[in-house]
Amino acid sequence: MELLKKRIIKDGQNLGGGILKVDGFINHQVDPVLMDECGQEFARIFADVGATKILTAEISGIAPAVFTGKHMNLPVVYARKSKPVTMPDQVFLTLAPSHTKGRIVELIVSPEYLAGGERVLIIDDFLASGATILGLVRLAETAGAELVGIGALIEKTFEEGRIMLGGLGVPIRALVSITSMEDGQIIFRE
Amino acid sequence: MELLKKRIIKDGQNLGGGILKVDGFINHQVDPVLMDECGQEFARIFADVGATKILTAEISGIAPAVFTGKHMNLPVVYARKSKPVTMPDQVFLTLAPSHTKGRIVELIVSPEYLAGGERVLIIDDFLASGATILGLVRLAETAGAELVGIGALIEKTFEEGRIMLGGLGVPIRALVSITSMEDGQIIFRE
Repeated sequence: MELLKKRIIKDGQNLGGGILKVDGFINHQVDPVLMDECGQEFARIFADVGATKILTAEISGIAPAVFTGKHMNLPVVYARKSKPVTMPDQVFLTLAPSHTKGRIVELIVSPEYLAGGERVLIIDDFLASGATILGLVRLAETAGAELVGIGALIEKTFEEGRIMLGGLGVPIRALVSITSMEDGQIIFRE
Repeated sequence: MELLKKRIIKDGQNLGGGILKVDGFINHQVDPVLMDECGQEFARIFADVGATKILTAEISGIAPAVFTGKHMNLPVVYARKSKPVTMPDQVFLTLAPSHTKGRIVELIVSPEYLAGGERVLIIDDFLASGATILGLVRLAETAGAELVGIGALIEKTFEEGRIMLGGLGVPIRALVSITSMEDGQIIFRE
């Protein structure tokens, strides 16, 4: 997606160690007009997968997921990383290593909002190692829901998350793919 | 706002102790079509305050804030509750007690995205005790930005947050106001 790629070139920062800072338009400050465009693009890409629900992880998946949900007219569930008082005692819970936090985080979904029969489209900001997305896949499976697709704003292909997710047999699409961040550069796949 | 009020009547739950569970459409599962309508309403209410930026707090403020931002064509900054590796060492930080978490949380904003000269509109899901919103106000003041308005989806007037915020001299608007949750009821202000 050319619009997102141009924005990464303009405002993204390669911090080294494979970390792409997009805090100015996705992760801390959000450009809602850009996110709306990205949501529309995901809605176009996944128009035919028959999704009934969108699943993402707090925090930075929320913005792209809710705009996708708006364009697909679907509810969005975001997995929580801590259990609020409003959640029932029995929950679906899995563990996933967080790259940016440098520790293991919990991903928690209430059975009230994810159940058998649902057709789940996962939307997140990054597809990097694939660990967070794989955690979301496990939550959907545990709930008895069927995974129908995975979308990410930005894929870092050099972290090879796609290999980890490849056996799932669903379409995996990124709006922008970055093949290398060595030597301070950001190299996009043509 | 009649649409939101009807949804609270249909899907909201009074858990006792003044806790309103709206996990089915705002806080864990999000109805993006409803949030889009709420964002449009905030955009209408605050059309004339001259805002240049929307400020909210992760996590549950993000959905209403990004849709408001989309309708006002403004960037949205969400205060983080932990500092990610992408954030600079020098940050704006304040502490606020969290009702639902039962502890003090940090609210952190990078000076990269909140600065003097900005005119800040705060959008959040709840106005209850006002503690989180007051934390956001302090962050905006620390940054040298000017507060121009405060909007919340739902106000619990019996927690009197409005009194705490009253001296700020800016418009404070809630889309729905709840005056009492005693005896398992949810009483709306007419």
